[in-house]
Amino acid sequence: MTDEEIMAEAIREAKKGFPLAFPNPLVGCVVVRNGKIIARGHHAFFGGPHAEVNAAKKCSYNLRNASVYVTMEPCSSRAKKTPPCTDLLLSLRPEKVIIGDLDPNPIHNGRGVEILRKSGIKVKIGVLKKECQNLNPAFYKNMKEKLPYIILKMAQSINGKIADNRGNSKWISSEKSREYSHKFLRAACGCIISGVETIIKDDPELTVRNVKIQSQPAVCVIDPNLRTPISARIFKAKRTVYLISLYNAKNKNYPENVSVIRMGKKEDGFQIIDILKTLYEKGIRSVLVEGGGKTHGQFIRSGLFDKIFVFISPMIIGQENAISSVSWTDRFSPKKGLGIAVKPEDIKSLGPDLLLIYGKK
Amino acid sequence: MTDEEIMAEAIREAKKGFPLAFPNPLVGCVVVRNGKIIARGHHAFFGGPHAEVNAAKKCSYNLRNASVYVTMEPCSSRAKKTPPCTDLLLSLRPEKVIIGDLDPNPIHNGRGVEILRKSGIKVKIGVLKKECQNLNPAFYKNMKEKLPYIILKMAQSINGKIADNRGNSKWISSEKSREYSHKFLRAACGCIISGVETIIKDDPELTVRNVKIQSQPAVCVIDPNLRTPISARIFKAKRTVYLISLYNAKNKNYPENVSVIRMGKKEDGFQIIDILKTLYEKGIRSVLVEGGGKTHGQFIRSGLFDKIFVFISPMIIGQENAISSVSWTDRFSPKKGLGIAVKPEDIKSLGPDLLLIYGKK
Repeated sequence: MTDEEIMAEAIREAKKGFPLAFPNPLVGCVVVRNGKIIARGHHAFFGGPHAEVNAAKKCSYNLRNASVYVTMEPCSSRAKKTPPCTDLLLSLRPEKVIIGDLDPNPIHNGRGVEILRKSGIKVKIGVLKKECQNLNPAFYKNMKEKLPYIILKMAQSINGKIADNRGNSKWISSEKSREYSHKFLRAACGCIISGVETIIKDDPELTVRNVKIQSQPAVCVIDPNLRTPISARIFKAKRTVYLISLYNAKNKNYPENVSVIRMGKKEDGFQIIDILKTLYEKGIRSVLVEGGGKTHGQFIRSGLFDKIFVFISPMIIGQENAISSVSWTDRFSPKKGLGIAVKPEDIKSLGPDLLLIYGKK
Repeated sequence: MTDEEIMAEAIREAKKGFPLAFPNPLVGCVVVRNGKIIARGHHAFFGGPHAEVNAAKKCSYNLRNASVYVTMEPCSSRAKKTPPCTDLLLSLRPEKVIIGDLDPNPIHNGRGVEILRKSGIKVKIGVLKKECQNLNPAFYKNMKEKLPYIILKMAQSINGKIADNRGNSKWISSEKSREYSHKFLRAACGCIISGVETIIKDDPELTVRNVKIQSQPAVCVIDPNLRTPISARIFKAKRTVYLISLYNAKNKNYPENVSVIRMGKKEDGFQIIDILKTLYEKGIRSVLVEGGGKTHGQFIRSGLFDKIFVFISPMIIGQENAISSVSWTDRFSPKKGLGIAVKPEDIKSLGPDLLLIYGKK
């Protein structure tokens, strides 16, 4: 087996940590001796033992003459819930450690490798680097930009409407689409962002249903005038709800798990970047934007998105005043071209629906 | 080889007639002797020799001990440009004729088969029937409903906009999408239907470019008040242009190839069915609707479409007043559900664009 083939195994192993490892990164580890895989391990849940520990356990902590393949550089920090994996490796002394990519955290980047090399363990870096990075796009963005990873999600008709002219919108997308959305989008995000219009009109729960998770994602409502009703269903689950409001908006007798965040207002909305920075400071590492058209419009025209997930239901909603999946004021035009260009990345069939996935261009 | 395998060959052969055979149906023929294919033929161009004739030619008109596979029942009518294929078969006397499907024209349906059987030639019917029918959806609809086959085509942003708020729309779709559209949609239609708004705003040529065709498709503009300018580029090509107008609309000094058709006006538009019936009477067997949102809206809410081709360009056009690919008055709501449901049929990648194909539900 080549290094690439074994690393591909480690990547498969890493994916088993989805979604319970979040917001920690997905990491996989494979131990090879005499050309044979003798153990696999992955980071299985947030705060739990790392992939290397779980793999080492399975070979009774005996790594002599073995090679250790790990999708991300072993941790070397003592400021964590678990002891550093470099300590474990130094004591078990495998012959070689093969790493997919360095830890993107600038504080740790390359430090684990240095520790291993100094102790005489051979280290190879960059096997299936891109694929290993793709395991954790949010983690990479967090480390580089100190901002949450941003996914916009919209469920629309073929012609881009998310509701008819009277605001009716329930069940545009199929059951399979909703299942997908719960399992792969909501379960893996730290916070669901929505606009106050959606909260008032649809009164959604914004919870993860039918998926095993550590805890429900937080919710953040962009609500300048604190119009979110006290009875809103978002308050029912055990989790934090952030209400982004103006300084002078009148507070209500909200439940204990509500945190009202005050911000200034500029132009025709809050600055999205301010909201994202605030959420990041509060520990939110990835957000799922399930807004109406205006909320999505604010993110898109600000260039503040990493992925757009568009669920297209096989129907046409045609009223002139039916609500679009993205809209912004007529005063705003893109600098060049007709629209804001995005990068096509993937298509999936979900029952009768299509899911189109776009990235940033 | 099984009958199905040989009929599949005949279907492949039939497709070679695209698009020059239009508006005649695509028909393919394969001759087999001693288990071997000895000749193939297809209906190659409008008014030209039929598939059976072309196949027979290749075996020097000797069909003894041979089986003839043909995707559609051989013609038996003398009221045509070419002599009936049943005459040819009676004179060449193959052992057996295997037919994909009967001629859907009620006048001819089953008549060819009867003639062959009466003369002692064995006939088998219905091999890959569905697939043979799918070669000529327009022809089947024409024969059954006496109406043109209707394809709606829209090129839109991800969020369903065909132009920004100022009406800018040129080149939303990619070159590959435009090529596809010329080759597979325009080249195979008898008439392109558009709305007068599109003609005034975009002044399109509405011609087939870079594809070998018999003649340019006709154009039909839904133009209640005859606002189409005399200088419009649609008038340049050699072909008929129909202008659908109100009885009292003032005529202009239009070129000779223009035919102004007067109709009454009901509710908020002409009745689409009246336009389609009129075009059918004039010999139009398939139409491609390249309208703006309102024109598409009229067809869709009337249920008058067979396929919808949606080209999705990887961009977001977000202005509040950007123009939607489908729209109708707020007074109209579908009888049940949120929108008008359609049937997902196919997806194609065309460069950066996606083409979603929907049928009628």
